[in-house]
Amino acid sequence: MSRRGFGSDNHAGALPEVLEAIAAVNEGHMPSYGHDEVTERVERRFAEEFGDGARAFLVFNGTGANVLALRALCAPWEGVVCAESAHLNVDEGGAPERMGGLKLLTLPTPDGKLTPELVRSRFVRIGDEHAVQPRVVSITQSSELGTLYTRDEIAALKQLAEEHGAYLHVDGARLTNAAAALGCSLAEAAGDADAISFGGTKAGLLFGEAVVFRRGGEGALYLRKQSMQLASKMRFVAAQFEALLESERWRAAAGHANAMAQRLAEGVRGAVTITQQVQANAVFAIVDPGKAQALLDHSFFYTWDEATGEVRWMCSWDTTEDDVDGFAAAVRGDL
Amino acid sequence: MSRRGFGSDNHAGALPEVLEAIAAVNEGHMPSYGHDEVTERVERRFAEEFGDGARAFLVFNGTGANVLALRALCAPWEGVVCAESAHLNVDEGGAPERMGGLKLLTLPTPDGKLTPELVRSRFVRIGDEHAVQPRVVSITQSSELGTLYTRDEIAALKQLAEEHGAYLHVDGARLTNAAAALGCSLAEAAGDADAISFGGTKAGLLFGEAVVFRRGGEGALYLRKQSMQLASKMRFVAAQFEALLESERWRAAAGHANAMAQRLAEGVRGAVTITQQVQANAVFAIVDPGKAQALLDHSFFYTWDEATGEVRWMCSWDTTEDDVDGFAAAVRGDL
Amino acid sequence: MSRRGFGSDNHAGALPEVLEAIAAVNEGHMPSYGHDEVTERVERRFAEEFGDGARAFLVFNGTGANVLALRALCAPWEGVVCAESAHLNVDEGGAPERMGGLKLLTLPTPDGKLTPELVRSRFVRIGDEHAVQPRVVSITQSSELGTLYTRDEIAALKQLAEEHGAYLHVDGARLTNAAAALGCSLAEAAGDADAISFGGTKAGLLFGEAVVFRRGGEGALYLRKQSMQLASKMRFVAAQFEALLESERWRAAAGHANAMAQRLAEGVRGAVTITQQVQANAVFAIVDPGKAQALLDHSFFYTWDEATGEVRWMCSWDTTEDDVDGFAAAVRGDL
Amino acid sequence: MSRRGFGSDNHAGALPEVLEAIAAVNEGHMPSYGHDEVTERVERRFAEEFGDGARAFLVFNGTGANVLALRALCAPWEGVVCAESAHLNVDEGGAPERMGGLKLLTLPTPDGKLTPELVRSRFVRIGDEHAVQPRVVSITQSSELGTLYTRDEIAALKQLAEEHGAYLHVDGARLTNAAAALGCSLAEAAGDADAISFGGTKAGLLFGEAVVFRRGGEGALYLRKQSMQLASKMRFVAAQFEALLESERWRAAAGHANAMAQRLAEGVRGAVTITQQVQANAVFAIVDPGKAQALLDHSFFYTWDEATGEVRWMCSWDTTEDDVDGFAAAVRGDL
Repeated sequence: MSRRGFGSDNHAGALPEVLEAIAAVNEGHMPSYGHDEVTERVERRFAEEFGDGARAFLVFNGTGANVLALRALCAPWEGVVCAESAHLNVDEGGAPERMGGLKLLTLPTPDGKLTPELVRSRFVRIGDEHAVQPRVVSITQSSELGTLYTRDEIAALKQLAEEHGAYLHVDGARLTNAAAALGCSLAEAAGDADAISFGGTKAGLLFGEAVVFRRGGEGALYLRKQSMQLASKMRFVAAQFEALLESERWRAAAGHANAMAQRLAEGVRGAVTITQQVQANAVFAIVDPGKAQALLDHSFFYTWDEATGEVRWMCSWDTTEDDVDGFAAAVRGDL
Repeated sequence: MSRRGFGSDNHAGALPEVLEAIAAVNEGHMPSYGHDEVTERVERRFAEEFGDGARAFLVFNGTGANVLALRALCAPWEGVVCAESAHLNVDEGGAPERMGGLKLLTLPTPDGKLTPELVRSRFVRIGDEHAVQPRVVSITQSSELGTLYTRDEIAALKQLAEEHGAYLHVDGARLTNAAAALGCSLAEAAGDADAISFGGTKAGLLFGEAVVFRRGGEGALYLRKQSMQLASKMRFVAAQFEALLESERWRAAAGHANAMAQRLAEGVRGAVTITQQVQANAVFAIVDPGKAQALLDHSFFYTWDEATGEVRWMCSWDTTEDDVDGFAAAVRGDL
Repeated sequence: MSRRGFGSDNHAGALPEVLEAIAAVNEGHMPSYGHDEVTERVERRFAEEFGDGARAFLVFNGTGANVLALRALCAPWEGVVCAESAHLNVDEGGAPERMGGLKLLTLPTPDGKLTPELVRSRFVRIGDEHAVQPRVVSITQSSELGTLYTRDEIAALKQLAEEHGAYLHVDGARLTNAAAALGCSLAEAAGDADAISFGGTKAGLLFGEAVVFRRGGEGALYLRKQSMQLASKMRFVAAQFEALLESERWRAAAGHANAMAQRLAEGVRGAVTITQQVQANAVFAIVDPGKAQALLDHSFFYTWDEATGEVRWMCSWDTTEDDVDGFAAAVRGDL
Repeated sequence: MSRRGFGSDNHAGALPEVLEAIAAVNEGHMPSYGHDEVTERVERRFAEEFGDGARAFLVFNGTGANVLALRALCAPWEGVVCAESAHLNVDEGGAPERMGGLKLLTLPTPDGKLTPELVRSRFVRIGDEHAVQPRVVSITQSSELGTLYTRDEIAALKQLAEEHGAYLHVDGARLTNAAAALGCSLAEAAGDADAISFGGTKAGLLFGEAVVFRRGGEGALYLRKQSMQLASKMRFVAAQFEALLESERWRAAAGHANAMAQRLAEGVRGAVTITQQVQANAVFAIVDPGKAQALLDHSFFYTWDEATGEVRWMCSWDTTEDDVDGFAAAVRGDL
């Protein structure tokens, strides 16, 4: 219907099975606000997926998921350690601060990934009422820059957080891409995180995310409603997740997106400077300013950094080999 | 799949045409966050529907719609005059106060409807910094109690608001029921309101509401994102609204729900005391406590007031004559 | 310097001993933010006054005290049951809602006093995430209408609150007036409240209130700072309270104000209708509209209710018998 | 009464003339909340000082002043560009975020001072609803690191802000030190800033700051009350400012503090590494860890950076030459 491209993994539609699942639950009356059988089933499914005791709260979108998770983990005087490049910090329209009242304790990173050394520098002034107290370490898996945390890296951050009585939160808007790339389960890709914003939309839903708490999260039931994230006809959120989790359907979809990014990176190597490791479904590269417009005419994508000419190419579950090959050729100047 | 009943109009599924519309826009890539052609089309459609210059912002749910509308109309020191029974006041989990920072200046009403006399009593202490300044009058059409504002009644409230430099907001979670009952357009059912929370979910969508501003609403673009109400794959919200507005498809659906409520009221008249005028799709009645459980075993519904035994029976677009007749017989004790 | 009157007990200056106490601590360096010896002494003094374990947090003003107390007692999804006429609800410029995110669950009262029956009606919908959960019952002692809670009345409210796992908060902006009138200690005047906003300003300070927690109040240290209520040169707040609490100096000051209100009530009896019991330092009366301006020319006071012509006459620690007698004569028309 | 030292300029008491001014306005009744003649007089005085049209709002403390100023300048989707080291960012307990809902767009600086180049990097993504829109540039004069903006430097920042439709705010907790050091008026020390948090406490008051708006600030009257910063017995705040502004009394006090910092810097030069230019009343230096405790036993001061051993020595209006000479000798090891 519209021009294809590499703008974002949310430029794709929904997986066909997701649409089918919605149609399949449309008949008849069901209790609203999550008291229906489909939701109960998918909540149990999440508990299996992320470990017994994991409680899932289905919500509308990623900003909502992150704000709900962090509101549930922080007292009003506590804050969130995260990367400067975190979606939380740069792309949520100030929702963490204004809707959640949360102070973000940011850290500059070259690759979008926190390290224990960086995080440690934020665990200071404990007990000093003039300073917001760090209570959550929030990481993004895969990161905003298309990089991955290894399971050891997450374990080290979890340990550090725990030593300071803090929670580890994973912004998993692209957790399926991470799990597919790491060849592990969703739970393993999130490490031993205490709370996870699990992304459904980019994974192939129409809309829908889930906040999963393994520890903490008191009052999340109330906070979801108050955070304007409680769907009345919840069955339609639940059914989508059921379709996504069924037989790890997400793995093929996310694995494909990752593979397309690898293929793209291969295809353009030499022609541009790739600036980040290509570990999930994103390719970051420096494009010659003189060529950028011609490439944009070919396929849509976003400029990441006006100053340096860095661009971001995202692949999604529906990116085709033809999409990639055609664009790579354009980048190489073969067209 | 689940037991049918009169619990809420959000216990029904979605209109078939809504599902078809979603499937029809699923192919290919589209810009996200509302920059797609489907959204642009439906925004124009809303402008036609509610008058040139009307700007529509699609959101996820009713709480989000109301909070967005009111955040956009009020400065931090301004508040909202509404009925004590307003959804805003009793059913949004404190979102207006905690997420919006809004003080609600409530008024007791027998029938869920504000009157100029009531509202006037809240336009006091103007310029006194110790008192929250009234800036919005918010009414619900049709009301929480199933009653309707006539077009003259809304006009009088609009005039009063305007005299005080205030906005009129309509919580139109059931505006389609109101328009169908009044035999008028959606725009007419909302009178000359400055802002409208237009409900899609209860009208037959999977999810989705629209905030329509005719006056005021500066910054709503930012506030929607910040209020966690911006869908990334917006085409799927837009397509649903397109299907609902197409040839006034909502009118048949809402008109049917209204007719079912009338049929139910007729069917139970004499057997119970009906406590509110049945003007839209709700019937309020006092049920003999001794009979309530048997009725609940027949069909699900909510008790409205434990103290008086008042119950609420809601009809939806998919309520059938059989649903109604069977339940009415049970109420009459004919079963 | 300015015209005397009955406008408010905050139209008076400070007790001479309060000024002396400030001067007495002005010399030399002291740690700031409450880590000085004067503050530590007065914190111990508060613990003695209100019971071992009571923790006092000195703040700037009454709005700050109330918001701090309630922020410390409520989770984000919890609210505060209070009288419609509570200062909290009508005179804090929306600070509870916008700064605290708090929903007030108000109750109409004829005399500014909550009763168990009234309060019980607000302990509903427990566990329902659509409704703000009642967590604090807040009463004002002496009330906004100059009335008093007996110790039995407070005990009954405390018991009710406790049965529902809720806290009892006393807005004690005029707790000294209550204690003086009841002939009891400050602690007794507050009953077994869990938290008290203890008013210093109206009692004779330049400024300064104290939030005293007997139970609950976790994080109050951080919340005071965050609520912009932490004085850097805290010694000057502490010294004032020390002077006020010394040998119950407050009792004479507040007792005098109360006595002046009684004298005024006696002096005008028959000439006007007194609308509330005169139990502390306020007299409420209906004044013939034709006479109101002449009285205002004599002494300043506030109209409480434009509609009924009800006025409020407040007496303070520095109101003189001459002030009262002259004004009473004017009211009687003897002048 | 307590041990003297270099901990903070808020460890000093109040100027004697300030205490006298308070005593001088204590007699009789005055309207509260700033409607008294003393407040009106000092508000006019501020208008003269900062230019006709300047509107001053007296508040309790510095956090309150900053939050009030910024709340009045920003819409909910707008944020504040400031230095990472700004008090706003590191020492207000999260009040900007939680009480004001404000996102701080921070910039690392070596000396606590913003530059046009730095600030320009934050004026990006204009019109993009996913990003908080920069609306205020906030600088601190003198800065947290004891450095000064020249009048040309402020003018350049003001021009940059204006080009972007933004406001310039000066956190002037130590504006008197800046003006004394620059040998200019308070107004000149603040440049053409649109809003100023003018600090009284560190300048020699018991407590009290003033927010001065030259442009913007709509609703500040309401916001001051709502921000819990409205004193009832306002005369006592106003009288203090009157004493401070009278014949530029502040200049001698602040100039003395500055001179003491210079004297201290001279006294220790060679013995320690001074890390920031000594331009106002602070000296920053690296102290040999082995010597720090002995110095702390001599006079109290704060460690600024545990990692580097950097310490901060603040001088106040009451720091004596003996204080300085004794401490400098200790630093030099002459004792």
